Amino acid sequence: MREVGWPAAIPVVDRNSIVPIYQQIYEDLRESILAGTLPETTRLPPERVLAERLGVNRSTVVHAYRALVSDGLVEQRVGSGSRVARAIGHPPRTADVPWWITLPPWQVGAFPQVLGELAATFHGERISFVQGVPPVEPSPLEELARSFARVAGDPDYVLSYGDSEGHAPLREAIAARMRARSCNVDARDVLVLTGSTQGITLVAQSLAEPEDEIIVEQPTYPGALQIFAIARLRAIPVAVDHGGIRVDHVEEILRTRRPRFIYTMPSLHNPTGVTMNADRRQRLVTLAGRARVPIVEDDPYGALAKTQTPPLVALAPKSVIYLSTFSKTIAPSLRLGWLTAPRTIYERLLLRKQSYDMATSLYVQAGVCDYLARDYDAHVVRLRGELTARHALARATIARAWPKTMRLTPSAGGFYLWITAPRDLRARALLDAAEREGATFLFGEAFFATSGGDHNLRLAITPVTHEQLVSGIERIGRAMAALSGR
Amino acid sequence: MREVGWPAAIPVVDRNSIVPIYQQIYEDLRESILAGTLPETTRLPPERVLAERLGVNRSTVVHAYRALVSDGLVEQRVGSGSRVARAIGHPPRTADVPWWITLPPWQVGAFPQVLGELAATFHGERISFVQGVPPVEPSPLEELARSFARVAGDPDYVLSYGDSEGHAPLREAIAARMRARSCNVDARDVLVLTGSTQGITLVAQSLAEPEDEIIVEQPTYPGALQIFAIARLRAIPVAVDHGGIRVDHVEEILRTRRPRFIYTMPSLHNPTGVTMNADRRQRLVTLAGRARVPIVEDDPYGALAKTQTPPLVALAPKSVIYLSTFSKTIAPSLRLGWLTAPRTIYERLLLRKQSYDMATSLYVQAGVCDYLARDYDAHVVRLRGELTARHALARATIARAWPKTMRLTPSAGGFYLWITAPRDLRARALLDAAEREGATFLFGEAFFATSGGDHNLRLAITPVTHEQLVSGIERIGRAMAALSGR
Repeated sequence: MREVGWPAAIPVVDRNSIVPIYQQIYEDLRESILAGTLPETTRLPPERVLAERLGVNRSTVVHAYRALVSDGLVEQRVGSGSRVARAIGHPPRTADVPWWITLPPWQVGAFPQVLGELAATFHGERISFVQGVPPVEPSPLEELARSFARVAGDPDYVLSYGDSEGHAPLREAIAARMRARSCNVDARDVLVLTGSTQGITLVAQSLAEPEDEIIVEQPTYPGALQIFAIARLRAIPVAVDHGGIRVDHVEEILRTRRPRFIYTMPSLHNPTGVTMNADRRQRLVTLAGRARVPIVEDDPYGALAKTQTPPLVALAPKSVIYLSTFSKTIAPSLRLGWLTAPRTIYERLLLRKQSYDMATSLYVQAGVCDYLARDYDAHVVRLRGELTARHALARATIARAWPKTMRLTPSAGGFYLWITAPRDLRARALLDAAEREGATFLFGEAFFATSGGDHNLRLAITPVTHEQLVSGIERIGRAMAALSGR
Repeated sequence: MREVGWPAAIPVVDRNSIVPIYQQIYEDLRESILAGTLPETTRLPPERVLAERLGVNRSTVVHAYRALVSDGLVEQRVGSGSRVARAIGHPPRTADVPWWITLPPWQVGAFPQVLGELAATFHGERISFVQGVPPVEPSPLEELARSFARVAGDPDYVLSYGDSEGHAPLREAIAARMRARSCNVDARDVLVLTGSTQGITLVAQSLAEPEDEIIVEQPTYPGALQIFAIARLRAIPVAVDHGGIRVDHVEEILRTRRPRFIYTMPSLHNPTGVTMNADRRQRLVTLAGRARVPIVEDDPYGALAKTQTPPLVALAPKSVIYLSTFSKTIAPSLRLGWLTAPRTIYERLLLRKQSYDMATSLYVQAGVCDYLARDYDAHVVRLRGELTARHALARATIARAWPKTMRLTPSAGGFYLWITAPRDLRARALLDAAEREGATFLFGEAFFATSGGDHNLRLAITPVTHEQLVSGIERIGRAMAALSGR
């Protein structure tokens, strides 16, 4: 292998990027040529050699080289391969550099599109356990449509931007429900958000700077990991066990390091379904308070627990920034969430929230506010019942249809099942087999800030009918059996 | 003055911060004491001296010192003033530092709350020319409510997140309308946004890094200036005259500097109402293309012009990131906008957009998509007529009721009037007088990245009735007369 001759011509490719690999090769070489790193007449590696080196199909490299030829940057001759073209007769090369080549590098994490994948609506004809959306039954739609109809004709709601803090009556309604969960919250502590995802970005950008460390649970919500990667924060993972985050590990970390915040989902944790026990809750807030490291409590599911646990913010209002959403209790397409924060931080978050969208849709806020005053609380009670029924059904089906070697994390409810496969069964292989059987789910790696999760799978039990829930679990069971039998 | 003894005890205060000044003084001194910069027993400046030095009321300093005393950090004795307290007998001081004191400094610009102010609904009983909202008549509400009612019962729209790129039929409807304005745009070039404000933040965070330079128009949309300040970009202002941005100045800047992008509003510019002429449009895109500096074209008002001008993106699709919104043509509370961008950049913007809110409300997107297919185009035509009528009414009233010394920038339409007062009349003084007469508007400084604008005022002619438009302009006229008569 004559690699020695072309080290500068071996592009760096990122298999997890959403940018096609041929385009990465093309852009990398193009930049090197235009920048002069690869001078005129330099031989490029033969297509086959580069393909082997990068572990890609030869046609991918062919495609990239062809694009360079059509730019006039590379010449190809039969027998003598590909060379960087002479510039003579061409306009000065730098004039060809597109402006985006000079941009700072992308910061997108290991699973860059994961938020988009979690949001995407189409999963083909398979039974999909991917999305954390509420079940279609019990449906809030009829009452919600009535609430929207009540506000849709009012120019005060529709032809205005509204206050960046949020619609005052909605903030009061949210605060009242938090007070019912033992939180000492006033309407003015509530900042309405366009979904709680916005709150994660808000804290990532407001409480930390690039390269700062933060603590995350492992596993955790992959959307949060994408956000932290984009904000260039360094996530220190701490394991979650049956009692919640390992507070003893947090304590150890805080002995020597100063993370900017601790991101945790203490109630019906995504993906494990675990609810942090009372002892750890108290220890965590005490520890964080003493170390002066704020806790970012993400609580999309807490209101849906059979047994209500007060959020962490109830224990330590000055140390906790609390995030929640109506995506799981009413409907995701509302894009309506909120946070509460200590006053000093509230102002900072408010300013940055304005930069994301000025204010959250007042029309949506007014509609939901109307709905909260009418059917919401009854709907949440119905939803809790439905989740309990689905967990029972899923567990019974798993007990019947899956090999005993699959371990299901015991949980208190919520939208997900978190499964650990035995050592000889990788979740990605299982996913391939399951998709052939007509069912799909998320594999575990996406939930891990560092390596790990390759034997884990997450099943959302809400985006399917009861029949599909049973049938989909059976299909995955058949895939398991097929793989074990190999 | 014994200032020499306490340089470390002179806090830095920011008059434009939304944090009260007493709190800034308190927090600054508190941090210095806890950090040891002001050691035990150090004398603090007498309240009167510090107040003079900072140009604030004495009571502000008294208030701040009192908070420090109540923290146990400062001791006050009659006759010997204020000193940093001895720590003996107190718990270790560092335990008292709230975690937010260690946060990086706020980055909020000269008018930090301006996006919030532009969004806010309440302006008291005055006739308010502040907000750039569409007029109440012609109203889109009835048809829009019908469109929302059509989609509100569909779980596919309400119980889903939807694709982060946006609802496919909406992207197609947007692309079709851009093609009708001479832009070569495909549905896949369209990224749906939660208002075009989101697009400004998106480019500010994706195309540049803190301390990078960008070019902005002067005057320009103050919300954009707030966003650039939060992103810590350095705005190089370029004047706007009757032909649009001074392209000759842009050329001069590009000779020696490499700004990350040029932010411009070429059609019905906010605040001046100017539409860039054809010659400058061509020169600007040529210049930007040659220098490889992308143009961020903000176009909230272009569709409302009497005479349609193709956007800049029609001239140079590879150099322009185009932003627009339905806030001005339908309703601001939709929080629905979009951008188009060259493919490579599109992917980058898409990833970051996901971090702001996963996806824009699918319910809102589906409702607006239905409305676009029905009444939208007719509504826009009616709106253009209404704006023409309002401009005529406003100009006639100004000609009759205002002193001839006030200069009105000639404009092609849009939501605003931009007025320059004579040298001896400051806009802030005029605003005070106008508010006493019962009318309010925005003063010019907020539209300037650097100093300037202190003799300018912006009147939005849309958020009022025709009667209020006349009466409000007359009231401002009375304020002008009163000030000139002084």
